[in-house]
Amino acid sequence: MSTTSMHPATSSSQNPSPSSQNLSLPYASRHDKLIGSVIDASTTLLAAYDHDIVKFGMGAPAPDMLPAKDFARIAGEVFSPENFTYGETKGEPILIEALHDYLASSGQIPPEQQGNRDRLLITSGGMQGLDLGFKLFVSPGDLVACESPTYTNGSATAMSYEAEILEIPVDEDGMQVDALEEHTARTGRAPKVIYTVPTFQNPAGVTMSLPRREQLLAFAHRHRSVIIEDNPYGMLRFSGESLPALSDLSPNDPLIFGVRTFSKFVAPGLRVGWIDVDPEIRELAVNAKQTMDSCAAVPNQHLIARWLAEGGADSHVEVLRQAYRERKVAMSEGLQRLFPGEIRATDPDGGFFLWVTFDDETINTEELMPTALEEGVAYIPGPAFSPAGNFSNALRLCFASATPDRIDDGLDRLRRAVDRYRSER
Amino acid sequence: MSTTSMHPATSSSQNPSPSSQNLSLPYASRHDKLIGSVIDASTTLLAAYDHDIVKFGMGAPAPDMLPAKDFARIAGEVFSPENFTYGETKGEPILIEALHDYLASSGQIPPEQQGNRDRLLITSGGMQGLDLGFKLFVSPGDLVACESPTYTNGSATAMSYEAEILEIPVDEDGMQVDALEEHTARTGRAPKVIYTVPTFQNPAGVTMSLPRREQLLAFAHRHRSVIIEDNPYGMLRFSGESLPALSDLSPNDPLIFGVRTFSKFVAPGLRVGWIDVDPEIRELAVNAKQTMDSCAAVPNQHLIARWLAEGGADSHVEVLRQAYRERKVAMSEGLQRLFPGEIRATDPDGGFFLWVTFDDETINTEELMPTALEEGVAYIPGPAFSPAGNFSNALRLCFASATPDRIDDGLDRLRRAVDRYRSER
Repeated sequence: MSTTSMHPATSSSQNPSPSSQNLSLPYASRHDKLIGSVIDASTTLLAAYDHDIVKFGMGAPAPDMLPAKDFARIAGEVFSPENFTYGETKGEPILIEALHDYLASSGQIPPEQQGNRDRLLITSGGMQGLDLGFKLFVSPGDLVACESPTYTNGSATAMSYEAEILEIPVDEDGMQVDALEEHTARTGRAPKVIYTVPTFQNPAGVTMSLPRREQLLAFAHRHRSVIIEDNPYGMLRFSGESLPALSDLSPNDPLIFGVRTFSKFVAPGLRVGWIDVDPEIRELAVNAKQTMDSCAAVPNQHLIARWLAEGGADSHVEVLRQAYRERKVAMSEGLQRLFPGEIRATDPDGGFFLWVTFDDETINTEELMPTALEEGVAYIPGPAFSPAGNFSNALRLCFASATPDRIDDGLDRLRRAVDRYRSER
Repeated sequence: MSTTSMHPATSSSQNPSPSSQNLSLPYASRHDKLIGSVIDASTTLLAAYDHDIVKFGMGAPAPDMLPAKDFARIAGEVFSPENFTYGETKGEPILIEALHDYLASSGQIPPEQQGNRDRLLITSGGMQGLDLGFKLFVSPGDLVACESPTYTNGSATAMSYEAEILEIPVDEDGMQVDALEEHTARTGRAPKVIYTVPTFQNPAGVTMSLPRREQLLAFAHRHRSVIIEDNPYGMLRFSGESLPALSDLSPNDPLIFGVRTFSKFVAPGLRVGWIDVDPEIRELAVNAKQTMDSCAAVPNQHLIARWLAEGGADSHVEVLRQAYRERKVAMSEGLQRLFPGEIRATDPDGGFFLWVTFDDETINTEELMPTALEEGVAYIPGPAFSPAGNFSNALRLCFASATPDRIDDGLDRLRRAVDRYRSER
């Protein structure tokens, strides 16, 4: 999708740093690397609009897919005073137990790791898992490889620790590990950390093939690079054959730092996720988390623990898979109908996202955005997924947040926006 | 309480770093500065005991002081699907509004700052406020001054950014700013950041006098040091005259980074706090938080917003003040009765903590701890409050977590533990 690009950990094309020299405060050297998140900022951006907007932007489950009613009921059972005080940093034991049992019974941890609860640490959402991974492994100037396009909340977190970012192109089979190997051979410098969303990638929706997975693991072992395997969507497969996670291919591998979350299959607002890492790393992560927020929100952990113990997850995940399959089909078909011969779109087998590239390279999706919002549809522009600001003629669409009918409406609005943008420029 | 001590940001006397070289992983340089929190670890330590333990350790409100029933009721009202998706990074607008109104109406922000909601950012507990402060202002090798004894979760967070820590002694009037000035004059090096809990200090329970506050502000202005004013207890005064916060004495001062929390007057398990900072700093803090956890837990913010809007805070805080006054008196009197002529104890006008120093300097409160736990009482040993591991003959007692009867029981157990420890060593 682009050539390998390498650049220092700053970018003028992304969410710019605030005008933070005005007060001449004695900021830390990292302060101008704190570029923020265009993705997260879109929540605030949309809150400022009054008219109806179909939200294809934020990667959030649709409100109708959130078990809020279950939680209101469960709150009556678990909102005891004891569950409102400080919890253990590693997480509430009852949640660790319920999570372990759920993962084991649904085949989401390899048999070799089952029974080992010392690998699990409950985090404040998947984002904190990423923050922990980069905090433990990235010193200023270290090289961090990420996909291109990538989930820039991950690369931005690496940048907050003053990493140098290396973008490795993604194709239909995921990260082009050949390009990573070539870059390493040419420069003699392997990345300290490789950040990847191998399954239903954010934003491209593609899945790393099995040969690529094996190639990536071999690379990491050869160079002793840590792989941060960010896997929020892996369980949300709605078509095609299951592929093993990197952590399944190499069980108990200390070089694999697994980041998972309840955000995509339960509810993001709860801000509860987990990491699955070597117990030595977990011990250090507990220390790190004690400098971050002490523990994840305690009543939230008990809501999820009870919900898992009630067996809520299996049927709910099935509902999600069914719904997201329909929504993806609606979006794919709508794009083909409305933008024939004008775009290329990925066709994911799971997850939340479609990646759309306009054949006309002069279309600038950042410039298109105000018109789209006026027409009543939101997306995230392509450059938000590249630390270097590439992909100006691409955009990410989340199909998970809207019903098929709303998706049709949203794509009609996008069609109108593109037509207006073209005629007005 | 000790002389000024200066040392690099490592310590063998505190919670040791895990044996983290075993796997020879490519950790970041900061990894051996991630010393963790003896205070937080006590939650896990105590969970391993089966017998009854009176908990004077963790600085947590008593379970009977947590409005869990209110929250179970309010959950039925605010647990709508919309409140379980991602929220704005700065915080839910409804909470910012309710918080601002509560702070304004209860005189907790200076008139000059009222109406300015752009200073407030909702954090995942007060700890995240500290993490944000040190992240924005501390580069490796920067000097950070803290109190001695201090809340080491704060100093440990500074150390996680590879600060050099300078401990400034505390007396009955709070941080000895003279010592800070002398150290600066002698070394020619002022701290980049000054970390202080000026009101009902953690762990000493003392309050910085007005002259000291003015002296500290003058120092910060002279040297352009940032003051992280950690103020979790200020509203929990139960005797004596109110003193203005540093942020009241110098409104809209960009050098004051105010950290506050709902943990001590609502419920710590919710993990919701806030920072009150210059809007320019808040903008940068939003960016930083997007690399940490995107937003504070959303339903939790709505629980608190509704509770504040219902007017729950004023009467609840009055109940807390009354209860903590009784508990502090019970603890002070119990100590005088059971340890006459053997200890010195501080006598706080608010907050959660008494600081107890044994006259016999050979008493080692870390060594005493196992006996105390056997006898059924928990506290935090003095060295947990000093990066250098000072105060081996002191300990912190939290009087807020137990009823007066339980406090009497706990002190009886402590008396027995000290007697056994003395006879057995």
